[in-house]
Amino acid sequence: MKKIINDPNELASEAVEGLVLAFPHLIRQLEGAQVILRRDAPLAGKVAVVIGGGAGHEPMFAGYVGRGMATASVQGNVFTSPPPMPIYKAAKAAHGGAGVLFLYGNYAGDVLNFDAAAMMLQEDDNIEVMSLPITDDLASAPPERSQERRGIAGDLFVFKIAGAAAEAGGTLAEVTTAARRANDQTRSMGVALSSCTIPASGKLIFDLPEAEIEIGMGIHGEPGTYRSKLLTANEIANELCARIVKDLSVKSGDEVAVLINGLGATPLSELFVVSRAVSRFLVKQSIAVCRTYVGNYASSLDMAGCSVTFMKLDAELKKLLLAPAESPGFVQVKA
Amino acid sequence: MKKIINDPNELASEAVEGLVLAFPHLIRQLEGAQVILRRDAPLAGKVAVVIGGGAGHEPMFAGYVGRGMATASVQGNVFTSPPPMPIYKAAKAAHGGAGVLFLYGNYAGDVLNFDAAAMMLQEDDNIEVMSLPITDDLASAPPERSQERRGIAGDLFVFKIAGAAAEAGGTLAEVTTAARRANDQTRSMGVALSSCTIPASGKLIFDLPEAEIEIGMGIHGEPGTYRSKLLTANEIANELCARIVKDLSVKSGDEVAVLINGLGATPLSELFVVSRAVSRFLVKQSIAVCRTYVGNYASSLDMAGCSVTFMKLDAELKKLLLAPAESPGFVQVKA
Repeated sequence: MKKIINDPNELASEAVEGLVLAFPHLIRQLEGAQVILRRDAPLAGKVAVVIGGGAGHEPMFAGYVGRGMATASVQGNVFTSPPPMPIYKAAKAAHGGAGVLFLYGNYAGDVLNFDAAAMMLQEDDNIEVMSLPITDDLASAPPERSQERRGIAGDLFVFKIAGAAAEAGGTLAEVTTAARRANDQTRSMGVALSSCTIPASGKLIFDLPEAEIEIGMGIHGEPGTYRSKLLTANEIANELCARIVKDLSVKSGDEVAVLINGLGATPLSELFVVSRAVSRFLVKQSIAVCRTYVGNYASSLDMAGCSVTFMKLDAELKKLLLAPAESPGFVQVKA
Repeated sequence: MKKIINDPNELASEAVEGLVLAFPHLIRQLEGAQVILRRDAPLAGKVAVVIGGGAGHEPMFAGYVGRGMATASVQGNVFTSPPPMPIYKAAKAAHGGAGVLFLYGNYAGDVLNFDAAAMMLQEDDNIEVMSLPITDDLASAPPERSQERRGIAGDLFVFKIAGAAAEAGGTLAEVTTAARRANDQTRSMGVALSSCTIPASGKLIFDLPEAEIEIGMGIHGEPGTYRSKLLTANEIANELCARIVKDLSVKSGDEVAVLINGLGATPLSELFVVSRAVSRFLVKQSIAVCRTYVGNYASSLDMAGCSVTFMKLDAELKKLLLAPAESPGFVQVKA
């Protein structure tokens, strides 16, 4: 294991602290917790969008707190859900009087802990809370069990849509509806070229032979759909795109937003080669593209590989997607 | 070698094509060349800022073309300067009647080829051209031979400053003066944890034992200052910062912009840990920070490692740094 770290047990907390020290004009940290708040939170009368999950996916989650994005984020240790108490604290600090929307990837630990925090907020503080576990990873369960699917890079689109809806002054019901629509219209699928090393143990989380890749692997090394010999970028992109457009029922004439996400150790040169193939696939199918984002948006420590995400747009989702945003990990100027 | 590519000889051209297909609202490609132009170029009456160098550093160079950034970029093959003809074509297409400023890292091939293109533009087309080879890598030559130094991640700050000055309507002399001041006030130093693999040959460009790192290594594997056993993130950051503030004569009370740059295979979690240490170093020295940027801004294919860059600010550099910008690889909203 060769990493630029200090104490491997402190990676999660030091990364959050580094983020806050780098972006003090946008965010601040709640003392004694891995909780990041918009610098100007709470925002009176606006819905608080609170996101979170395990560390190790930087810039997700803390990097997506900011104007037009999440109001707060709460992180656990590497690949570990945050406990209920910091989630509760994040929501209390972020709450501006118009309710709280919890958004997180659909993992058992996150569901349990966010639900426990929601109960405390409702019972102890009379704060209204809605929750949406994100389920964009189509490889993690078949369509008939889509509510069991995990959340991966598509989380970003759901955060962006909810953040824009909250910034625009939507009610809790309206922001939740927008986020739910974004989740319903988003699908992702990834491919791993290598494992990643858990800092605290120094161990790889799985083995992948030098000549093989795993299609559909999750961002914590959850088993994928199948292993294959190393494919070309075009073959990988075409395989991921074909599965996404089928599962999402994207048809000629539809419009999508595209996210080409790097898992941590894959350089941008390769992501642009994948993006090229995805663009060509969509042109061939006469599917319009509103925006394409290419970069490391939801990583898995130092895993090599990438994922492709499409969000199928309607007029409202498109408007919310194109709204300006400013967070450490996602900046967008007025269209 | 395990990369997500197609033909390894086409990586450079396919990455540029992928970039253009992903960001058609910002940039376009000059047919038949690895030349990227602002979508709205040429801009009548504005200085054309033309940047370039070898491929393999994505999102540098092509990703820094856009509003408030470069007018055009021209790239060669992986780690290879573009020849004079595409540089000439890029400048001709970008020229808006107010002259051309060439900005590129100070490498022999780039100097030769940009100079040859400048001569053609001046003699054949009567276009005024200024050139600035960027020299931010303090590890590449001692202070008394600073004009021999190479350009690395600090290129980004010089592009940003020149792009903002051109966007504001500065003359060629004014834009060149601003870029020169940015270069004079910028220093970088990097550390490599691994080599990178040249796609066409499948070969590592150097060997680095598992337990060692190389301090001061260049972004094409040029030898660094010394090899060391693996250090902690704090030790690495303190070493790089100490050398930079000394070489740049940054003192208590000064204000800097900071860039924590990943070389390709180092995940953001680690970059934030480095950024944390850099922030703490600067606080301890009472050096103010205007903005910190953390990410993969100037990569070296799949090399693991990072670099740290400071630009010492005066009132004009600060104003130009904070000006809004929108390019595929660098977006900044109005401060």
